[in-house]
Amino acid sequence: MNQEFIQAIYNFIPETRVLTELEDLYSYSFDASFGEYLPELVIQPKDPDEISKVVKLANKYLVPIYPRGSATSLSGGPLPVEGGVVLDMSRMNKKLVIDKENLLAIASPGVITADIHLAAEEVGLFYPPDPSSSHVSTIGGNLLENSSGPKGLKYGTTKEYVIRLEIVTPKGEIVRTGGKTVKNVTGYDLTRLIVGSEGTLAIVTEVTLRLIPKPKARKTLLATFNQLVDSGYAITKILANGILPAAMELMDNSCIRAVENFQPCGLPIDAEALIIIEVDGHPLAIDEEIRACEEICFSVGATSVKVANSDHERDEIWRARKMVSPAITELGPTKISEDATVPRSQIPAMMERLKEIREKYQLTLVVFGHAGDGNMHPNIITDKRNIEEMKRVEDAVSEIFEVAVELGGTLSGEHGIGTLKAPYLEMELGEAGVDLMKSIKEAWDPNHILNPGKIFPKPGVKKVVLTE
Amino acid sequence: MNQEFIQAIYNFIPETRVLTELEDLYSYSFDASFGEYLPELVIQPKDPDEISKVVKLANKYLVPIYPRGSATSLSGGPLPVEGGVVLDMSRMNKKLVIDKENLLAIASPGVITADIHLAAEEVGLFYPPDPSSSHVSTIGGNLLENSSGPKGLKYGTTKEYVIRLEIVTPKGEIVRTGGKTVKNVTGYDLTRLIVGSEGTLAIVTEVTLRLIPKPKARKTLLATFNQLVDSGYAITKILANGILPAAMELMDNSCIRAVENFQPCGLPIDAEALIIIEVDGHPLAIDEEIRACEEICFSVGATSVKVANSDHERDEIWRARKMVSPAITELGPTKISEDATVPRSQIPAMMERLKEIREKYQLTLVVFGHAGDGNMHPNIITDKRNIEEMKRVEDAVSEIFEVAVELGGTLSGEHGIGTLKAPYLEMELGEAGVDLMKSIKEAWDPNHILNPGKIFPKPGVKKVVLTE
Repeated sequence: MNQEFIQAIYNFIPETRVLTELEDLYSYSFDASFGEYLPELVIQPKDPDEISKVVKLANKYLVPIYPRGSATSLSGGPLPVEGGVVLDMSRMNKKLVIDKENLLAIASPGVITADIHLAAEEVGLFYPPDPSSSHVSTIGGNLLENSSGPKGLKYGTTKEYVIRLEIVTPKGEIVRTGGKTVKNVTGYDLTRLIVGSEGTLAIVTEVTLRLIPKPKARKTLLATFNQLVDSGYAITKILANGILPAAMELMDNSCIRAVENFQPCGLPIDAEALIIIEVDGHPLAIDEEIRACEEICFSVGATSVKVANSDHERDEIWRARKMVSPAITELGPTKISEDATVPRSQIPAMMERLKEIREKYQLTLVVFGHAGDGNMHPNIITDKRNIEEMKRVEDAVSEIFEVAVELGGTLSGEHGIGTLKAPYLEMELGEAGVDLMKSIKEAWDPNHILNPGKIFPKPGVKKVVLTE
Repeated sequence: MNQEFIQAIYNFIPETRVLTELEDLYSYSFDASFGEYLPELVIQPKDPDEISKVVKLANKYLVPIYPRGSATSLSGGPLPVEGGVVLDMSRMNKKLVIDKENLLAIASPGVITADIHLAAEEVGLFYPPDPSSSHVSTIGGNLLENSSGPKGLKYGTTKEYVIRLEIVTPKGEIVRTGGKTVKNVTGYDLTRLIVGSEGTLAIVTEVTLRLIPKPKARKTLLATFNQLVDSGYAITKILANGILPAAMELMDNSCIRAVENFQPCGLPIDAEALIIIEVDGHPLAIDEEIRACEEICFSVGATSVKVANSDHERDEIWRARKMVSPAITELGPTKISEDATVPRSQIPAMMERLKEIREKYQLTLVVFGHAGDGNMHPNIITDKRNIEEMKRVEDAVSEIFEVAVELGGTLSGEHGIGTLKAPYLEMELGEAGVDLMKSIKEAWDPNHILNPGKIFPKPGVKKVVLTE
């Protein structure tokens, strides 16, 4: 690392917030995805001015900058794949203001998303996006990946709630995008361009989120099916009946078995699938809706339907869903977590193809996800030290991406492209589509300072590589 | 106009779809805003391939291209301010497919928005964005301006419903952006970048819209107030009670008087303001909600509240609102329609400032708008032949923009920047913000082919000019 750069950093950031020891650098070398890359330096900035100065110096000395929240990324978002500086944004977590009258939350990027949920709910408001990691992940990380969780169908994704940003650009300018109003067409929508840009276009230093009134009540059911395709019919029929659930979650048989092995929740281990449906809104309306959902599930062949009659029973249902990640982690040391997303009508076809892929490559492949919006999470459990198996994993992952695109879907619903999916970008977007995106990156960041090595594939790389 | 360019056009577009006669060109010289500009040529393309060829030729011969739908723009969006070609997209209106299972509508850009409403409703689905012009405006025009109407508060804007586009780029490439799933983070969100870009970044040739189940029922009320500020309290208190109306519309006294003069609807001409509130959803829920809204209106000093008890009574209430535009058009030959938008809590302050501006400049200024999302429509009625008055209008319009930004709002909620508001762009966005936008335009359209003269101000122009 350039010593002049480091000296210049010490001129305005105290040593306590500049980490250089190997043991510190190690703890910034990974996220929740695959791969480890050691940064050369970690900086813990406290405000946009410091970040602006760091980025201007980075441009002068051509040092890559990798912004990082809680590092729960499943696609390699914060990994310093080309060395340089990790910018630890998790310490910028002081501001969280709820503007009740304007239905807004204004937050520092390092605020934990679950704390925004709580602060909003305390005054009767609601921030719907809720990725599984929300109790540890930061709002800054959530929005740069546009990670959204189970409520996308009814409430939309993180993007639909971010209306204003304060950012530091790749050249080090401090800029505000968007505004405090839901309606705003003053120039291009830079806010939405930056949300989901995986830290390649801007470092976010403040977020303004739109909130909505908290739904007055909710009802939850769990239905099991002996035929996976029937659970698909249930989902389609519920929507066709004019019911828009807050969440419709699917777990396949491998997933059910993994949970029961890990921490028994009383799930039927022979069921090919289960779905969890939650409706929310006015108490009178949802009583009627949950009964209709129950009837529809039975009408398409559900083997059992359990409607939660209390908060405790609801928590029990969601516990089974929340056990999925820890349960499957027990199945092996390495977990490759995908988020191939298809149009809802293609879920049964996608599940069928995933079954074929599991058999073809003889892998531990479990599937769960947000069925209401077609956002499935196929997870492959493996051991990265087993090179022979990892080669099969590479082939299986490639095939999952190909199938998703073939069925009219997308490589990534909410985890981002990062490093793992970059080789497949052109398959989905075409050369001209990738070029449009690249030209924005080039225009804003000609020196490739911000999070290089993400989203865009290296020339000639056409396939995921896990075994280097 | 370059004759080689015209000859090259005739090589692949038949004469019947290339207009050159003066009387034809005249009918493409205006929109619903201020100003008239004669195009040199009008082309009526029928598919993306033709458009791609036109744009490639336009780059070769440096001819500006102005895409145009029904020309209901209130900000000059389709005006050919630098001559060149108007591309009449209204003829590309053949495709309108509702994909019921995936809750999608796929439409040609020239499809009238109201036809999408109808097609969706026929199968129990709902496309919420509903600009006042929806019975004549095209979906392509709606989305390029992100014009949204009264339902932004509950349902979001047009942007929230556009998930996939087929476009022709400024260099003539045909590209698809986004996908058929609500969740999609594969690369940058070009779809949302293009929505609201006022035809400066792409020509849209196909749109995929997300639909939602149609609300089962709706209830509407009209409340009148002797104090404008009380209507603001009513709006805030309704939201604070956890009710999220589908629409909350405001009309000021001048507006009420204009409507009663034009076509009496039984409105109290002494009321300082009226609001129309519509709730939708489950019948049991909205019965309770509309009663709560009624009580809240009275509790903050409403002088009358009328709840519609039938479709006929509902239509009567909305008729008063829909009469506003035709009624105020009767007040004078020239109407300058603005859409300054402020955070909801600032509506009373904004109304107060508009009153001061009316008195200061002695103008006919009426105010109505979508109070729920802070999107106000101050309209100045004037006569463009009266140069002295137009000078006062220029000053008043400038001051309206300044006040909106000062109150934490935006120049434009849904009409776009176009030509009229361009001089004020930097006031809201700052130089660095404008530069970020310009750099995208430069990267995609280095020859300034697509809709030049819009959004970005001419160097040195710092104020609206209506009197040249």
